[in-house]
Amino acid sequence: MSTSSEPVKIGIVGLGTVGTGVVRLLIESCDHITRHVGRNLVVERVVVRDESLSRQVTLPKGMVTSDLSQITEDPSITVAALLVGGLEPARSIMIELLERGKDVVTANKALLAEHGPELFALARRKGRSIAFEAAVAGGIPIVATIAQCLSANRIEAVRGILNGTSNFILAHMEEEGASYSESLAMAQKLGFAEADPSMDVDGTDATQKLAILIQLAFGIWIPWREIPRTGIEAIHAVHIARAAEMGYRIRLVASASRAENALTMRLEPMLVRQGSPLAEVRGAFNAVEIKGDAVGRIFFHGQGAGQMPTASAVVADIIDTVVGRAAITFDTTGRMIDTHARSKEPLQSDPMNRHFLHLLVRDKPGVLADITGILGTHGISIASVIQQEPTELGAGVPLVIMTHYARQASLRLAMQEIDSRPTVTAPSTCLSVLDELDAPRHSVRESN
Amino acid sequence: MSTSSEPVKIGIVGLGTVGTGVVRLLIESCDHITRHVGRNLVVERVVVRDESLSRQVTLPKGMVTSDLSQITEDPSITVAALLVGGLEPARSIMIELLERGKDVVTANKALLAEHGPELFALARRKGRSIAFEAAVAGGIPIVATIAQCLSANRIEAVRGILNGTSNFILAHMEEEGASYSESLAMAQKLGFAEADPSMDVDGTDATQKLAILIQLAFGIWIPWREIPRTGIEAIHAVHIARAAEMGYRIRLVASASRAENALTMRLEPMLVRQGSPLAEVRGAFNAVEIKGDAVGRIFFHGQGAGQMPTASAVVADIIDTVVGRAAITFDTTGRMIDTHARSKEPLQSDPMNRHFLHLLVRDKPGVLADITGILGTHGISIASVIQQEPTELGAGVPLVIMTHYARQASLRLAMQEIDSRPTVTAPSTCLSVLDELDAPRHSVRESN
Repeated sequence: MSTSSEPVKIGIVGLGTVGTGVVRLLIESCDHITRHVGRNLVVERVVVRDESLSRQVTLPKGMVTSDLSQITEDPSITVAALLVGGLEPARSIMIELLERGKDVVTANKALLAEHGPELFALARRKGRSIAFEAAVAGGIPIVATIAQCLSANRIEAVRGILNGTSNFILAHMEEEGASYSESLAMAQKLGFAEADPSMDVDGTDATQKLAILIQLAFGIWIPWREIPRTGIEAIHAVHIARAAEMGYRIRLVASASRAENALTMRLEPMLVRQGSPLAEVRGAFNAVEIKGDAVGRIFFHGQGAGQMPTASAVVADIIDTVVGRAAITFDTTGRMIDTHARSKEPLQSDPMNRHFLHLLVRDKPGVLADITGILGTHGISIASVIQQEPTELGAGVPLVIMTHYARQASLRLAMQEIDSRPTVTAPSTCLSVLDELDAPRHSVRESN
Repeated sequence: MSTSSEPVKIGIVGLGTVGTGVVRLLIESCDHITRHVGRNLVVERVVVRDESLSRQVTLPKGMVTSDLSQITEDPSITVAALLVGGLEPARSIMIELLERGKDVVTANKALLAEHGPELFALARRKGRSIAFEAAVAGGIPIVATIAQCLSANRIEAVRGILNGTSNFILAHMEEEGASYSESLAMAQKLGFAEADPSMDVDGTDATQKLAILIQLAFGIWIPWREIPRTGIEAIHAVHIARAAEMGYRIRLVASASRAENALTMRLEPMLVRQGSPLAEVRGAFNAVEIKGDAVGRIFFHGQGAGQMPTASAVVADIIDTVVGRAAITFDTTGRMIDTHARSKEPLQSDPMNRHFLHLLVRDKPGVLADITGILGTHGISIASVIQQEPTELGAGVPLVIMTHYARQASLRLAMQEIDSRPTVTAPSTCLSVLDELDAPRHSVRESN
């Protein structure tokens, strides 16, 4: 393959799972990439914390170093991929790379969700770009889609399954009738969950990705900790079974939408109707659904993590950086994002939903009337009730209630009152039901 | 919104459904687009065939003209959207626009499938770009995905539902138990089919789009007429019902894959397993599934046609052209496409599949033995057989056979022999079964 000019030298920081995949892809697909770019891309230097560790890839002697200045001080390296997780030293490294005039590609969603505005501002001051397709939904090109392909649209809603580990656990609980802890153990055994899975199951990881998508889709920077977040740790097999009987699956859904001039955003386990796109996401896959005012609904499904799908996104960003697309998109994205005014629109803190309530109550006359009465006094109308036979002696009778549209705040008050009743034997579970993206707007119905 | 420089003047050629949508979007989303681009985009001139026709949009006097030179002779117009369908005068207009130094955006898949190499070569000679996201799958950003986001991947397979009209008809036949002609009439009534639907139902439209995807995904230009093509005109409600009983839906599938150094490509109605992504595409939606060596399987679903989804893609391309992304991508795509060598790899003309056979036979002893015997002598192994009660007196007994993996050529010979038997009362129907994208490669089994 003839090339028009000098090779482009790439610096890689981090040689973990993703870093190794990126190096492998750059080496193994070299001809293909050279043809696309019109120049040779070569891995010039790989910076690791500990040079002495053995690696999955064999690299030429001298290429691997623990000295970051081998990249920062080398003016011939113009693009660096930052493939170190967590906040530090990732943040300091990115600052150093930008200060030294490198364009940066990264897969680190925590870093961007925590320090995005600072890092983006620094890159702009230095005339550099940050590309981060790999930070959200791995192999699904959702960043490019929002930042570029939907540029003519006002985005009305973005929602997705953005964490493969938690989706694997929920799907495994459903398909195998397994418990939460059995399913988590299986995820760990199959490599879908870390030894410490807390950032996945408590929703931190997905919420950080949602914050990045919100910035792209709505142009507003929301610190990820301000996004209402519920993990999946309290989901029991019985919730999944009862939801399934009513035609739903439970999924950990990241969602953000703009309606009536207010933004609604949250990360929580929700009931998603069987057969709808997000409900049918299985295993460790990710999916994203977007509604734009012109394009309507579009849906994407793919691998959200894993070595090579993530490397695919990182290398595409490296290529985009070398050919100049990344700089343009970083520029256009910068105009769309207002990092100073965190939000010019009010945040809708009290969204309207249908709700799935799972209660355990004493098998006594008048209990159902009492509970439905409490819901009624809070203006919450009931769509359906299923009272089951007791599953164990003394465990209480499972009672499942599906409500009509109600405000979350009203429901919270009602549930506090219900759970304080002596006839309720355990804390109740309350999950929201996800609306279809093109469902008509609903109002509160009269209490029944 | 302050802008950094002069407005960018856009020329529009064609003010039909898509052209009107593009003009509307450019006007109604002006602020949003200006913010993205950093400059104002203004529709300077709209060229139509007949100025006297009434239009869906009201435009300033003097903006609409039938004189193409109002665009070509105006050096201040640098970008033109060619939104006229068919081959002529579309081809001549595109040549004129490129010759006069305009970057072109188009939604015309027939033009690109027929004259792509000539037009792309002209654009390159003139240093101009052609952007064509809207030509394939409307609002689904599949061109950008293949040309840009998957740049680090070798694509192994692309397949999709690329024609909304035919999918609407097939889905309506299945869901309503309606006949082909009733479903076509319904599609026409709802605006999903033209008065003359032949290009949709005979597969021309989807095959032209497939040819464009093949060029992007595999870098090889295949004239669309060389792609084996079967439309949906011969699909009867009874085929759909029998397939459904076996767990399949019938979909018009465009597919191309590279395996064992050969390309396989075709457009035909296939059996797709219920629950798999392409099977669940309903109504007039489009969907595309891609397998890349690094990213694995990714799946996209959205509106493949219609005024605003198509306009969304056209305006995104206009924006990409103005900000410079389109020129870069046209450049990188040009390096990936070899328009001279039509194919350096052999075309696989005899793919291996499972097959669904629907026959009508006389209700006589020995008929089943005779037919299965013919299949056996051609090395075609049978997976299952369902012989039904006669549906009407004298109409013959429906016989449904599902084969194991067999070469299409063997099957064709066997079916010729079977249909020549006097016991077979009507021409048989033979449909291929679509494999899952990550199914293991299959070999021919021993005949049973």
